[in-house]
Amino acid sequence: MISVVILGSGNVATHLFKAFNKAENVVINQWYSRNISTITSYNKEVEIIDDLSLIKDADVYILAISDDAISELSTQLPFEDKLVLHTSGSVSVYDIDKKHKRGVFYPLQTFSKEAEIDFANVPICIETIDKKCAPIIKDLALSIGSPTKRVNSDQRKVLHLAAVFVNNFTNQLYRIGHEITESQGAEFDLLKPLILETAKKVQDLSPYKAQTGPAKRHDKKTIRKHLKLLEDQHHKDIYQLLTTSIKHTHGRKKL
Amino acid sequence: MISVVILGSGNVATHLFKAFNKAENVVINQWYSRNISTITSYNKEVEIIDDLSLIKDADVYILAISDDAISELSTQLPFEDKLVLHTSGSVSVYDIDKKHKRGVFYPLQTFSKEAEIDFANVPICIETIDKKCAPIIKDLALSIGSPTKRVNSDQRKVLHLAAVFVNNFTNQLYRIGHEITESQGAEFDLLKPLILETAKKVQDLSPYKAQTGPAKRHDKKTIRKHLKLLEDQHHKDIYQLLTTSIKHTHGRKKL
Repeated sequence: MISVVILGSGNVATHLFKAFNKAENVVINQWYSRNISTITSYNKEVEIIDDLSLIKDADVYILAISDDAISELSTQLPFEDKLVLHTSGSVSVYDIDKKHKRGVFYPLQTFSKEAEIDFANVPICIETIDKKCAPIIKDLALSIGSPTKRVNSDQRKVLHLAAVFVNNFTNQLYRIGHEITESQGAEFDLLKPLILETAKKVQDLSPYKAQTGPAKRHDKKTIRKHLKLLEDQHHKDIYQLLTTSIKHTHGRKKL
Repeated sequence: MISVVILGSGNVATHLFKAFNKAENVVINQWYSRNISTITSYNKEVEIIDDLSLIKDADVYILAISDDAISELSTQLPFEDKLVLHTSGSVSVYDIDKKHKRGVFYPLQTFSKEAEIDFANVPICIETIDKKCAPIIKDLALSIGSPTKRVNSDQRKVLHLAAVFVNNFTNQLYRIGHEITESQGAEFDLLKPLILETAKKVQDLSPYKAQTGPAKRHDKKTIRKHLKLLEDQHHKDIYQLLTTSIKHTHGRKKL
């Protein structure tokens, strides 16, 4: 049995709470937040505190809080030599106060209030300073069904950066698709199967092999038509830059 | 029973052949291609021809060929007043020779040789000049299990343009994710669940509501870290442009 205290009350903290709460070999000793108003509804399932002086002993303390708050909260924790993890993709493990055993438990997934999460689809990237700390972190991830991967700091940081490309930026392309279709009264819904298929395709095929379309074909005529259709200069800029990027990746087709 | 002749031997033609061949109320009278070498293996299932003078009578002729070839091939067809459809997202229905009844059967999906296609996930965008032609085109789509949508020329063109954003450009962002992770020996595979979840999320939620991340939060510190991490100037340009785009969509967070 692994005992944990969760610190934080955002999306990641809440989804972790739900997952650990269901896990057979994990017990949540407490859930701390500076501002407990959003999580008081869970007080029948766990002890909720907003006072650090009341914090109990546990095997693992998980700081699922905003990047900027990690360093300070870790310093305020009224104990030493316990395993303290943060869940951030971009913050150094050394930002955690050195009085603790330090590590990272970075769930590589998008979390939102609305959507339920199956942790089987959430790879946990594990980083430690002392490798002796790794097994318990791995057990914690396995207890909620997550695959795990040991990564170093550089790898975690590029994974976080790459996640911005494949998640935030991709979602913005969906948004632009939405804007473009709506501008002519066409239905964005018609694009949804394509969006899903595009994501499914690269589960088995490399993005390089999965690519199709006018930029890859170097189909100047279609590219010209598309640029003419785009009314928003900002959309035009994105079209041009990503078309250039695809051409760059796939070489210039010899005519 | 609807009789069809398929013209063309690319991905769309091949996937349409397979789907129509399985459909109960469709009979494929012939499959024509100028170059039949890649489709001769199907000659036990259908009559394959490369000579237009041998073309048989049918209810519908489907030109699943490259955009540039549609106009010329439609002119060469040795008959008149029959229903002739093309499958292109960007070519005008008027590019088909006016001696025919003309229409568009545009499957809004990505097709590749490798991947099997379930036409239940392929919306067919239908366009006609004479609306009397629409019901048979709709029946043809329904016969392979596809949802259908009547669209006008402008709507079809913006759907094709939006498809480039949500498919080709999105796939290029996956490619960049691949390049960035590989540069540090991190595994692109770790991003695959995130890629799938990002696409699933917008099946129910608008892309606007689904957005998260540093650009939406106006998190300057993380954005600065990311730009510093990016070694390729081209990746930097894309990061900056899409970050600006997200900020534009979501407004500047007041601090």
